[in-house]
Amino acid sequence: MEYMERILNIETKKEVGKKVKVAGWVSSRRDHGGIVFFDLRDRSGILQIVSTPDIAKEIKDEYVLEIEGEIKKRPAEMINPELETGKIELKAEKLKILARAEALPFDLRDLKVSLPVLFDFRPLTLRNEKIKAIFKIQETVIFSFRKTMKELGFFEFESPTIVPTTAEGGAEVFHIDYYNYDAYLTQSPQLYKQILASVFERAFTVTHVYRAEPSITTRHISEYISLDAEICFIDSWQELMDTCETVIRNIFAEIEKNNQKELKILEAKIPKLSQKIPRMKMREAQEIIFKRTARDNRKEIDLEPEDEKEICQFAKEKYNSELIFITHYPTKKRPFYTFPDPEDEDYTLSFDLLCRGLEIVTGGQRINEYKKLTENIEKWGNKIKDFEFYLQTFKYGMPPEGGFALGAERIVKQVLGLENIREASLFPRDMERIDQRLSLLQPKKRGKNKKGAKK
Amino acid sequence: MEYMERILNIETKKEVGKKVKVAGWVSSRRDHGGIVFFDLRDRSGILQIVSTPDIAKEIKDEYVLEIEGEIKKRPAEMINPELETGKIELKAEKLKILARAEALPFDLRDLKVSLPVLFDFRPLTLRNEKIKAIFKIQETVIFSFRKTMKELGFFEFESPTIVPTTAEGGAEVFHIDYYNYDAYLTQSPQLYKQILASVFERAFTVTHVYRAEPSITTRHISEYISLDAEICFIDSWQELMDTCETVIRNIFAEIEKNNQKELKILEAKIPKLSQKIPRMKMREAQEIIFKRTARDNRKEIDLEPEDEKEICQFAKEKYNSELIFITHYPTKKRPFYTFPDPEDEDYTLSFDLLCRGLEIVTGGQRINEYKKLTENIEKWGNKIKDFEFYLQTFKYGMPPEGGFALGAERIVKQVLGLENIREASLFPRDMERIDQRLSLLQPKKRGKNKKGAKK
Repeated sequence: MEYMERILNIETKKEVGKKVKVAGWVSSRRDHGGIVFFDLRDRSGILQIVSTPDIAKEIKDEYVLEIEGEIKKRPAEMINPELETGKIELKAEKLKILARAEALPFDLRDLKVSLPVLFDFRPLTLRNEKIKAIFKIQETVIFSFRKTMKELGFFEFESPTIVPTTAEGGAEVFHIDYYNYDAYLTQSPQLYKQILASVFERAFTVTHVYRAEPSITTRHISEYISLDAEICFIDSWQELMDTCETVIRNIFAEIEKNNQKELKILEAKIPKLSQKIPRMKMREAQEIIFKRTARDNRKEIDLEPEDEKEICQFAKEKYNSELIFITHYPTKKRPFYTFPDPEDEDYTLSFDLLCRGLEIVTGGQRINEYKKLTENIEKWGNKIKDFEFYLQTFKYGMPPEGGFALGAERIVKQVLGLENIREASLFPRDMERIDQRLSLLQPKKRGKNKKGAKK
Repeated sequence: MEYMERILNIETKKEVGKKVKVAGWVSSRRDHGGIVFFDLRDRSGILQIVSTPDIAKEIKDEYVLEIEGEIKKRPAEMINPELETGKIELKAEKLKILARAEALPFDLRDLKVSLPVLFDFRPLTLRNEKIKAIFKIQETVIFSFRKTMKELGFFEFESPTIVPTTAEGGAEVFHIDYYNYDAYLTQSPQLYKQILASVFERAFTVTHVYRAEPSITTRHISEYISLDAEICFIDSWQELMDTCETVIRNIFAEIEKNNQKELKILEAKIPKLSQKIPRMKMREAQEIIFKRTARDNRKEIDLEPEDEKEICQFAKEKYNSELIFITHYPTKKRPFYTFPDPEDEDYTLSFDLLCRGLEIVTGGQRINEYKKLTENIEKWGNKIKDFEFYLQTFKYGMPPEGGFALGAERIVKQVLGLENIREASLFPRDMERIDQRLSLLQPKKRGKNKKGAKK
């Protein structure tokens, strides 16, 4: 017998009247008297299979099959305009079971499970079309970031994730037993991207960062994907926002271009962008929020989540933009390396980009002068010794520079209107879960348990 | 005065007789009586600057400058054919110091330092042209892997690095204090890439993996970059080697295409490939090694480093190939998920790809049948409970599949003929170093120190 090469479901459209071989997972078996219908799902999409109880007797959902048969036009009344292969079907002649599946714990096609169950069964629930669509979008977000960076002449590097000190952030850091020493999981590739920018002028990385968030929110996970860029020889910190805006526009355009199918499945619309994303000082934003809501946060050193929502609402009404840059965050709210505003040193040349009520980017100009930077390290309560490696970059000549970091899961969450950031993470990690619920997997550690809270 | 836009050094070639503005780092100042020459280094390359003691009085190596002046042709006897801008120079008229630099601890252009010093001063030594070239090559390796995978229809995903159990490997794993629980740094994205392959049929990831190597070798680092791929619906495990070969060929071709300059600086030659990379069983290789060297390792369950070198030498002599696939590693030497050879279950359908004496890829077919896989998990001394999440993939239908993983640093090391893998890692981590030497940075932990060795 002649060997037949498997083709993808989508390719069968051109094969009407011909014999083909396809392969995939069974979905949605329907028995109609002497005929058995089911969908075959492969990476290209769905194909309707027509079979008989005889041939298909064993077949259940999620069985993996290889099927040979003829591609036929469907009768007019059976055409499914929702499906790319909706005008055809495959009449099964030979059917080989490549793998069996146990009975599913829930309806995988019409998925109605709570978030904990969604994640308990992540390997299975990822097969659902809507869930899969989320990660096709995530792939595009990261792809587009990388593409834009390369077009702009940035060098891509891999940032290390094991770090020697709790350097940048402070409290919310994971400790590692590192041979006979202490080490930590990085909270940001900040120091490394500055080093790389001093070598290649423009550097970016797609990397994982870690935050030991001590509480459960819909905006935080313990391991997330950071899209980081750093640029030397800037004339003004405004250039950083210009580049950031280019990145965001390209991400949205790339989703529009590549993911119409996914946007439709998820009933999502790309956020509206005005000609230029509005830029506003944090203190101005607080004034506007006060006027609009009578909520007086004008003395706060940061925007609260409800403030971020309100100022986005304002930007949408006033500028027809669902994104807005908030600038000039207070010096005491930002890390030691942030460039102070020469006009008022209590504020910084820094920015956040908010989208539909949530921060999705943070950035700013950095202090590039060695002496000033060492002073700030001490002023922020850190030890010079812990930063000597990093400080070489500035000791041996660093031009004016800055950069920004995008949170990949947050962008996906905001673009798709997901309620919880965990939905935008393939395998979300938090206080209670690494794949499975930790409480089911292992006992709490004794020492820590006694004291109750985490270190 | 009119604002002038900075251009790159390389772009000045087209500007002879015109005024330009450039910016970069000073390198190699030479004073000749009334004239001062120095090189200006930017991301595009080197440009010779001609100045006067008056204008350039303060200028030292690694100062960052912005310079305006006229591009002139060099006198014939001054032409430097080694340099892309070797026929021109810039006559400085205005010179602005963007950042100063302290005196360098060593000659940065003609870098002759020991490996420990190279890494102690990594932020500085990365500015050396040879060192920089290594990471341009690394960038190409990763870029090319990603490009090939996308062309072949693979889905790119981000693999989590915090994992709940010491699952796959056993001993050499880093422990994390994870809230009130225990967690670990992943040793491989294996389980996750199999899950993703069950969703998208073909999946790949560029990810960091961690090995608590208890010794110092020239082949191991504690954090490295793994290029991982997994493929469903294979007809035969030989297809995995075919795809792997395509990946490797494309990587070499892409380096040839993009990195002639770097290969020249590093005096490196791409490894020779025969029409098809030879494939040989491990036991056959051991026989050949025995015949060639009288070293009898024919009963060993793995190849020793000296064996890997010897069989590569053989492949070069016999097949004119500097790469060779070694197949059929013993079952007891491979992880629980490796597919046994139906013809002899003591061996597996697995392979390593050796290049110039070192393993750079490992791969194989996986057990895709749920029952067999659960049996093996227990046979390997693991608990089913620790794998229930992963096992969903097989419980609910997984076709025949397999994959492979490339070590990015190892490929770079072998292509460039570097002696130590640390040279191919931007910020190498090992027992003694995270950026700085740990012994200088922090005391050993008390508890661990007493017992001497690591857990």
